[in-house]
Amino acid sequence: MPVGKWFRVQSIGTIHRGGVEPDPDAFYDPWEESVIEVDPRWALGLEGIEGFSHLVVLFYLDRAKRRRAAGKPRAAEAQPDPDAERVGFLATRTPERPNPIGISCPRLLRREGNRLIVTGIDAWPGTPVLDIKGYFPRDELRPEATVPAWLTRLNERHDSERGKPAAR
Amino acid sequence: MPVGKWFRVQSIGTIHRGGVEPDPDAFYDPWEESVIEVDPRWALGLEGIEGFSHLVVLFYLDRAKRRRAAGKPRAAEAQPDPDAERVGFLATRTPERPNPIGISCPRLLRREGNRLIVTGIDAWPGTPVLDIKGYFPRDELRPEATVPAWLTRLNERHDSERGKPAAR
Repeated sequence: MPVGKWFRVQSIGTIHRGGVEPDPDAFYDPWEESVIEVDPRWALGLEGIEGFSHLVVLFYLDRAKRRRAAGKPRAAEAQPDPDAERVGFLATRTPERPNPIGISCPRLLRREGNRLIVTGIDAWPGTPVLDIKGYFPRDELRPEATVPAWLTRLNERHDSERGKPAAR
Repeated sequence: MPVGKWFRVQSIGTIHRGGVEPDPDAFYDPWEESVIEVDPRWALGLEGIEGFSHLVVLFYLDRAKRRRAAGKPRAAEAQPDPDAERVGFLATRTPERPNPIGISCPRLLRREGNRLIVTGIDAWPGTPVLDIKGYFPRDELRPEATVPAWLTRLNERHDSERGKPAAR
């Protein structure tokens, strides 16, 4: 069996949330404001990014457990459900992945020097940032995309548990 | 100045293009068929991914030069143009980044075991894959996204040079 090659990646900044300290038990509403602070070393790279209304942000889920094996496909829905489809981890957004890299497409409210004020980052405060790109509709916008029925059910359940639909 | 933390990531598969060998001078039309071959070790993780019409694929640009410094903002458009806006590398899709990680949102035509047949991967054959996720419209679809004028001009020029609009 071929063994995967390894590569090194580095943090170029950090995600903050208004003075909030990381708390593993907290729910961080992605649609509240976050700040992406880019390390001074890379700050010149941000010039002109404020021309984009949205970003693509890659971050390293440094508190996630790295997945060591594919494992058997499991029910996509957390609650026991005899009809639940069993899917592999690549079909889900579990943070337990061979490479725990998260991605979000936040709205960019404004830039203040090396700080990007955004809404829509689904990451804990303190998470290291790996890359930031402008959201290019040609590359990222797939209006015709369809998803499996279990994901639609899962989203509906989450919305009803939180008492509101997902806002942008 | 704080120094970025480093992390290790691993390839979980490889991008192929119908027997084509990598050629640094070739233009690979992203909209031709590619195959994402997932290493057998991770193949069980693909179960159910065929329920998605589109994917989010992260890959390591192993032939790109890693960026060592932000550098001065440069003209976003390759051709000399006195009106060209000067932007930093984070506002562009240059592969020369602190972390040369590429992202594509291809259409998934079908799965054949551990092989995903797709269109819309903008990567050279042989590129190592870091992660695959289903395209979640709630997370990736930003229909209201706007881009700077220079990007629109750049896209128009590319389309006219290639004699066709970008297909999906």
